[in-house]
Amino acid sequence: MDNSEELERVCVFGTGDMGRSLGLRLLQAGYGVVFGSRRPHSSSSLIPHGAQVLGHAAASQSAHLIFIAVQREHYDFLVPLANQLKGKVLVDLSNNLRKNQYPEANAEYLQSLVPGAEVVKGFNTLSAWSLQNGPSDANRQVYICGESVEAKQAVIAVAIKLGFSALDQGFLSVARELEDFPLQLFPQWRLPLRIAIGLSAAFFFYLLIRDIIYAYVTQSKDISFRIMVSLANKVCPIVSLIMLSLCYLPGVLASFLQLYRGTKYRRFPDWLDRWMLCRKQLGLLALGFAFLHVLYTLIIPIRYYVRFKATERTNRTTQFDTTTAWRGDSYLSLGILGFGLYVLLGITSLPSVINTLSWREFSFIQSKLGHLTLLLCTAHTYLYGWNRFLSSSTYKWYTPPGYMLCLVLPSVVLLLKLLLITPCVDRTITRIRQGWERGADQRNPKDSQPLIP
Amino acid sequence: MDNSEELERVCVFGTGDMGRSLGLRLLQAGYGVVFGSRRPHSSSSLIPHGAQVLGHAAASQSAHLIFIAVQREHYDFLVPLANQLKGKVLVDLSNNLRKNQYPEANAEYLQSLVPGAEVVKGFNTLSAWSLQNGPSDANRQVYICGESVEAKQAVIAVAIKLGFSALDQGFLSVARELEDFPLQLFPQWRLPLRIAIGLSAAFFFYLLIRDIIYAYVTQSKDISFRIMVSLANKVCPIVSLIMLSLCYLPGVLASFLQLYRGTKYRRFPDWLDRWMLCRKQLGLLALGFAFLHVLYTLIIPIRYYVRFKATERTNRTTQFDTTTAWRGDSYLSLGILGFGLYVLLGITSLPSVINTLSWREFSFIQSKLGHLTLLLCTAHTYLYGWNRFLSSSTYKWYTPPGYMLCLVLPSVVLLLKLLLITPCVDRTITRIRQGWERGADQRNPKDSQPLIP
Amino acid sequence: MDNSEELERVCVFGTGDMGRSLGLRLLQAGYGVVFGSRRPHSSSSLIPHGAQVLGHAAASQSAHLIFIAVQREHYDFLVPLANQLKGKVLVDLSNNLRKNQYPEANAEYLQSLVPGAEVVKGFNTLSAWSLQNGPSDANRQVYICGESVEAKQAVIAVAIKLGFSALDQGFLSVARELEDFPLQLFPQWRLPLRIAIGLSAAFFFYLLIRDIIYAYVTQSKDISFRIMVSLANKVCPIVSLIMLSLCYLPGVLASFLQLYRGTKYRRFPDWLDRWMLCRKQLGLLALGFAFLHVLYTLIIPIRYYVRFKATERTNRTTQFDTTTAWRGDSYLSLGILGFGLYVLLGITSLPSVINTLSWREFSFIQSKLGHLTLLLCTAHTYLYGWNRFLSSSTYKWYTPPGYMLCLVLPSVVLLLKLLLITPCVDRTITRIRQGWERGADQRNPKDSQPLIP
Repeated sequence: MDNSEELERVCVFGTGDMGRSLGLRLLQAGYGVVFGSRRPHSSSSLIPHGAQVLGHAAASQSAHLIFIAVQREHYDFLVPLANQLKGKVLVDLSNNLRKNQYPEANAEYLQSLVPGAEVVKGFNTLSAWSLQNGPSDANRQVYICGESVEAKQAVIAVAIKLGFSALDQGFLSVARELEDFPLQLFPQWRLPLRIAIGLSAAFFFYLLIRDIIYAYVTQSKDISFRIMVSLANKVCPIVSLIMLSLCYLPGVLASFLQLYRGTKYRRFPDWLDRWMLCRKQLGLLALGFAFLHVLYTLIIPIRYYVRFKATERTNRTTQFDTTTAWRGDSYLSLGILGFGLYVLLGITSLPSVINTLSWREFSFIQSKLGHLTLLLCTAHTYLYGWNRFLSSSTYKWYTPPGYMLCLVLPSVVLLLKLLLITPCVDRTITRIRQGWERGADQRNPKDSQPLIP
Repeated sequence: MDNSEELERVCVFGTGDMGRSLGLRLLQAGYGVVFGSRRPHSSSSLIPHGAQVLGHAAASQSAHLIFIAVQREHYDFLVPLANQLKGKVLVDLSNNLRKNQYPEANAEYLQSLVPGAEVVKGFNTLSAWSLQNGPSDANRQVYICGESVEAKQAVIAVAIKLGFSALDQGFLSVARELEDFPLQLFPQWRLPLRIAIGLSAAFFFYLLIRDIIYAYVTQSKDISFRIMVSLANKVCPIVSLIMLSLCYLPGVLASFLQLYRGTKYRRFPDWLDRWMLCRKQLGLLALGFAFLHVLYTLIIPIRYYVRFKATERTNRTTQFDTTTAWRGDSYLSLGILGFGLYVLLGITSLPSVINTLSWREFSFIQSKLGHLTLLLCTAHTYLYGWNRFLSSSTYKWYTPPGYMLCLVLPSVVLLLKLLLITPCVDRTITRIRQGWERGADQRNPKDSQPLIP
Repeated sequence: MDNSEELERVCVFGTGDMGRSLGLRLLQAGYGVVFGSRRPHSSSSLIPHGAQVLGHAAASQSAHLIFIAVQREHYDFLVPLANQLKGKVLVDLSNNLRKNQYPEANAEYLQSLVPGAEVVKGFNTLSAWSLQNGPSDANRQVYICGESVEAKQAVIAVAIKLGFSALDQGFLSVARELEDFPLQLFPQWRLPLRIAIGLSAAFFFYLLIRDIIYAYVTQSKDISFRIMVSLANKVCPIVSLIMLSLCYLPGVLASFLQLYRGTKYRRFPDWLDRWMLCRKQLGLLALGFAFLHVLYTLIIPIRYYVRFKATERTNRTTQFDTTTAWRGDSYLSLGILGFGLYVLLGITSLPSVINTLSWREFSFIQSKLGHLTLLLCTAHTYLYGWNRFLSSSTYKWYTPPGYMLCLVLPSVVLLLKLLLITPCVDRTITRIRQGWERGADQRNPKDSQPLIP
C-alpha cells in the first residue's frame, strides 16, 4: 500500500504459518506490518502483499509492538537485540508440544532473555487457521497476561481491532496456564467417560456371567455369539439410563442441600460442584448409548439368529394375547418418545442452539423436558420388566437381571424430584433461590443477592 | 494490580453472582473495578482479585459509571445516596421473575428514586454465566435504553470493550420490554406448536373412530392395543406432511399475491407475515414428527402383533407379485430419500450452519431442496395409497382414510409451485422482485428498491 | 432523538430494505442517521424512528460517510451530485443477480461516475436480515476494499461500532471479487458432489448388470424391483466407504510426500492441496450415504419381498450354525459402532462444535477417531464378504461384486496409515512437522518455523 506510512505500525518476528497469518490479518485490519526475518531477502516472497520485511534489528525499530511468532527453541536470537527491544512490548505467541516440556513458561523465559522489554503472553490459543478465517464464537476470546498494564492495554487494543475480545488474566506467572490451554484433551469429558467405561465394563461382565456363562454351565449351551448384539443391546440401555439419572441427580441433591441449609449463600461441597459441571457431558454420553441401543434394537429382525428362531416358531400355534400386545406396543412407544426427547435435549446442547435460547427457555428444556425424558425411559424399562419382577426364574444364580439394577438410580432421582415439586417444598426452594435465608432476619443480605436466581 | 490508578474506573454495586461476574469481566477487559457493598469488610473475600470494595457512598465517588447489580426489592438503599449519585450513569441490570411483576419497569423505578442520575437499562439479557464464559453469537448483542445520549454512549463503549455489541433501543420507556426479554418462553414456537397439537388431536380421534371403534362396532373386535404404535404411526406422518406443506404454503401464497398486485412494495397482510415468520418452526416440528414416524415404522417387525401375524401367515401360500414388490420398494425408497432430505433441511437450520451459507446457498437449500422434500414425501404417501383410492372398502363409514386427507394440502402447494415455476410466470415474479411495478412508469421507484431481492 | 446533533452523523442513500435496516442498526449503535431520498416527504413514513430524511443533495452535506443502498441501475442519479460528493466517502453496498452481469464491478462504475469521491466497496455480503438480527459468527466479518486508506479506516471504524469486524482486502480492483461472494453456490462442495455422483452412477450400472440383467439373461427372472431398495442399499455403502477413504487418503499421501522430501517447507502439489481442502465435504457426503445405507438396511424386514421369502423359508428346516450367528452379529455390531462414530465425526464438523474444541482435541477426533471409523467400516465390509471371497460363484460373468471393489481403497489407506504410525516412521514425521529438515544443517531455519505444527 502506498500510504502505509500513515498507518499505525506493528512488527512480526517470524515468517512461518503463524507469523504470516497474523501479519495478513493485521494488514486487513488496517495496520502497517513490518516482518523481522534473519534472511529478509529470501523471505520477501513469502510474506503477504503490502507488508515489509527487514532484518530483526531494523524491523524492531519501526514499531512499539512486536509479535514473536518464533518457536521457543530459537528465542536466543533475541539476546543480541536486547538493547533495541528495551521498552518495546513483546507478545509471546508460542505454544509447546506437551505440558511441562520446559521448566518455566515460554513467556517467562522470553522475559528473562530480554529483561528490558515488556513481555505479554497472548494469542497463543489461536491457530493460524482461525486467524485466517476470522474469529468465531469460542475462539473469539484471546487471553493475555503480563506485568505491565500499559503493555496489556496496547495488546487489547490490537485484539479488538482484529475482531477478538482480549481478556487480561493477570501477571506473567499465569503464562504457563495459558500455554497449557491448546494442549488440553477434553478435560471435562474425562470423569464422565471414566464413569461410562466403568459402568459398561461392570455390566458387561455381570451379564456375561448371568447370560452366557450361566447357559453354558447349567445347560451346556454355547450362546457366546450373543455377545456381539444381544449383550451389547443390554449394556447400552442400562448404561444410558444410569448416566441419564447421574445427570439429573446432582441438581436434585443440590436442591435438598439448599433446603437443609436454608440458604443458597453457602458453597456446595467440591464433589457436588465438580459433578454439576459435567452434567452436560454425562447427558451427551447417555444419548450416545441410547443411540446405539436404538440401532441394536432396530437390527434385531435382520439377525440370523432371530430369523432362524422365527422359522422354528411358525410350527407352534399360540393364542393372541391382547395384554401382551398392549404391553409390547406401549414399551416400544415409550422408548421411541423417550429417544425423541433425548435427541431434542442433545440438539439443544449444541453451542449455537443454546445461544439462541433465553435463560428461561434453556432451563425449561434442560430441566422440565430432561426429567420427562428420564421418566419416559424409566417407564420404558419398567414395562420391559413387566411381571418378570415377581417370577423367581428371572433371578438366575440369585442375581437380578441388569435392567432391574439400572432402575434403582432413576427411580430414586424421580422420587426425589417428585418431592421437590410438591407445592410446599417448591415454595421454600423458590424463596431460597430468590435470596431468602432461614432464620437470617438480623442480617441484611441486600447486595449479596444475584440477579438471576 | 499495582498500577490500577491509571486505569479507567467503573463501579459495581452488589457482590452477588451477577455483580462478581461482571466485575471480573471488567477487570479482564482492563478496567479498574470498585465494588460498592453495605458490608465492605465481609464482602472483600468474595470479590475477584484485583478489585476494591468500599461502602456504597465511597465507591460511588470513585467512578462515573455505576452498574447496579442488586435486586429491585433493595433499591431503596440508593435513596440516601441520591446526592452522591447526581450526574452519575447508573446501569440497571435487573430482571424480574415474571412479567408484570411490578407496575413500572425496574429502570424507571430506579430513575424515580435517584432523579439526578442518568439511568441506562442494559446488560440484563446476559446471565452471570455468559459474562464469565464470554459473549457468543446470539448473546453478543446487548440492548440498552435510556434518556441521555451521552450516558448511553458511555455504556456502549464499555460493552464494546467487554466484547459485546450494544444496541440503543431508545428511551427509558422501552425498559419494560428489555426486562421481559429473558422471561420469554419460545414465543415463535407457540403458533406452530398449537397447530401441531391441534392436528395431532384431530387426526388421533378421527383415526380412533375409523380404525378401533369401527372394528369394535362392526366386528366386535378389540384392537385397542393398536393405539400405541399403529395409530401413532398414522398420526405422525399425517401431521408431518401437513406441517411441511404449511411451511411452504405461505411462500407460494406470497408469490401469488405479489403477482396479483403487480408490485412488491405493498406489505403482506398481517396473518401472512406472521405465518411466514414461523416457517422454520413449522418445518422443524414437521421433521420431529417425521423422525417419530421413521422410528415407529422401523420397530414394526419387532412388535408382538406383527410377529404373531407372521406366524399365522406362513400357512397361506400366495403367488409372488412383482408389481406389489415394485410399489412397496418404491414407497420405502421415496420415504427414505425424503427423510434424508428432511434431515438435511433440519441440519441447515442450525444457527451455526446457516451462518456459513451465502444468501444464494441458503435460498437454494430452503427453497429448492425444501420443495423437493415435499414432493418426495407426497409421492411416498400416494404410493402408500396406491390403488386403494378407488376401492370402496377403503371408505369405512363413508370417511376417507387419514393419508388421503393429508394429501390435499401438499398436492395444492405442489400444484401452485408448479404454476410459479412455469417460464412466463417465473419471469414476471423475478421482475417484480427486482423492483419492477406493473403500470408504474410514471412513478420513479429508484431509491426505494432493496438491494437484495 | 432530541440531542442527535451531538452524535457523529452518517448518511444513507436509499430507503429500501437494505437502507432501512442499515439505518436502524446505525441509529442503535449511536450514530445520527440522515437518509437521502428523491421524495423525502413520501419516504419519511418508512424510515426508522430517530432518523432524518432529506433530498439527496441536502443529505450529502450533513455527513462525510455516505452508504449507497441503491441498485446499480439507478446510480446515474449521482452524476448531478458529483460536486457535493467531492471528498466524501461513498460505501457501495450493491450486489448483482448473477456473475459477470456488468462489464466492470459496481463499485468501479460508481467511482467512474463520481471521480471526486472516495469509493469503498463493503458490507455487501450482509443481508438486510443479518443487519437487523445482528452479526453472528460467519457473517461477523465484513470485507472492504478501496483506494484510500483513510476512507477505509473510516469504514472500519463504523463496522466495529456496529459489531462487525472489517477486513481490508486491498484496492478497488478487488471489488468484483467481493461482489461475487453472495452469488457463490457451494464452491467447495462441487468436486466432492461430482465424485459422489460419478461413483454412484458407475456402481449403479455395474450392479445393475451384475445383479438384475445377469438374472434376466441367465435365468430369465425379472427381479427389476430390486433396483429401488436392494440395489440402492448396495450403492450407498459402497460409495460411502470409498468417499470416507478418499477423505483420509490425501492426509496419508501428504505425510509420505513430506517423508520423501524430508521437509515440510515445500508446498504440496496443487491437486493435493485442493483435495485436502475438500476433505470435510467428502466426509460429510460419506456420512450422508452411510445414513441412507442404515435406513435402507433397517427397512429390510418390512419389505414385501422379504416377508414373502420368510413365509417360503419356513418350510425348510436347517441346522443352527453358531459360526454364521457370530459372523452375522459381528458384522452388524461393527456396522453400528462404525456408524455411531461416523455420526460423532459429523457432529464435531458442525461449525459451532469445532469452535469449542482446542487444536489438539480437533486433531484427536478428526484423525484418531476418523481412522478408527474407517477401520470399523472396512472390517464391517470384510465380514459381509466373509468366505465368499474364495467362492467362484461370487464372480458372475467374471466380475467381482461391488463390496470387493470398494474394499481396495480403504485397505490401501489403512495399510499406509499403519506404516505411518510405526514408531520409526512416526518419529521422523513428527520431527519434520516440528521444522526439522533432512540434510539441512547448514541452513538456519529459525524464524521460518510455524508455531503450530
